Amino acid sequence: MPFEFEVPETLSKKNLEDGTVFAPKFDAKGLIMAVTTEHGSKDLLMVAYMNKQALSLTLETGIVHYYSRSRQSLWKKGETSGEMQQLIEMRTDCDQDVLLLNVEQTGRGAACHTGQKSCFYRKVRVSEGKAELQKIEGNQIFDPTKVY
Amino acid sequence: MPFEFEVPETLSKKNLEDGTVFAPKFDAKGLIMAVTTEHGSKDLLMVAYMNKQALSLTLETGIVHYYSRSRQSLWKKGETSGEMQQLIEMRTDCDQDVLLLNVEQTGRGAACHTGQKSCFYRKVRVSEGKAELQKIEGNQIFDPTKVY
Repeated sequence: MPFEFEVPETLSKKNLEDGTVFAPKFDAKGLIMAVTTEHGSKDLLMVAYMNKQALSLTLETGIVHYYSRSRQSLWKKGETSGEMQQLIEMRTDCDQDVLLLNVEQTGRGAACHTGQKSCFYRKVRVSEGKAELQKIEGNQIFDPTKVY
Repeated sequence: MPFEFEVPETLSKKNLEDGTVFAPKFDAKGLIMAVTTEHGSKDLLMVAYMNKQALSLTLETGIVHYYSRSRQSLWKKGETSGEMQQLIEMRTDCDQDVLLLNVEQTGRGAACHTGQKSCFYRKVRVSEGKAELQKIEGNQIFDPTKVY
């Protein structure tokens, strides 16, 4: 049975920020941002969006579902690649417009469509007044041309 | 001198995702999302936005600047509260529309305006088919009514 969520506008600021009522703030497009970290390592894996259905299914099944903005449809993460995410813990922030998902990455352990463990595989390096990217080693898990 | 950033639309998908050119993808409002974690603990502290000026100032000074959507202005984090953030490392994700900031939190160590260390101080608990919030202990650092 799908979960019902409280509408944040019905709560006072104090109750929204300090209370026990879960009232996720979906934006004008019906989406809420989800920041996903790996259980144990606490590495940031990815950032994506959920709609009401994806959030409800994630809580119901314990398997993370997002909403794909490019495909405009429910996205059961890992359905194609096998890289599913088992939810360990979900948190929300002070004004309840972001979710934090702590997950165990199944499959080979790559959350990113590039075949890397995390989407955040490049750091910004400043050199002679210019900002450029530098790859972080040891993040590549599979070759995406052989999977998708 | 302010940093110049490449425009992502000028890059191929391969170069955007696999290259060394930093081309942060600002949205229609000129903002890019920043996910901020604490150096060492790797705790997720907060999620906020940067505009071009905030990103440039952050890289230039090493002190994190955001853009406040509610105040519609540059926001040097901690200017009022003393809770500044020293940038340790910045990363970006595959399609360069999110930044990851790894910071050292100065002051008392509270990133959230509620006086808590992290904005993510409540977990979602499912009980009898209902989702509700539960506070995580040990996260409160100062009393916001005495600071702001």
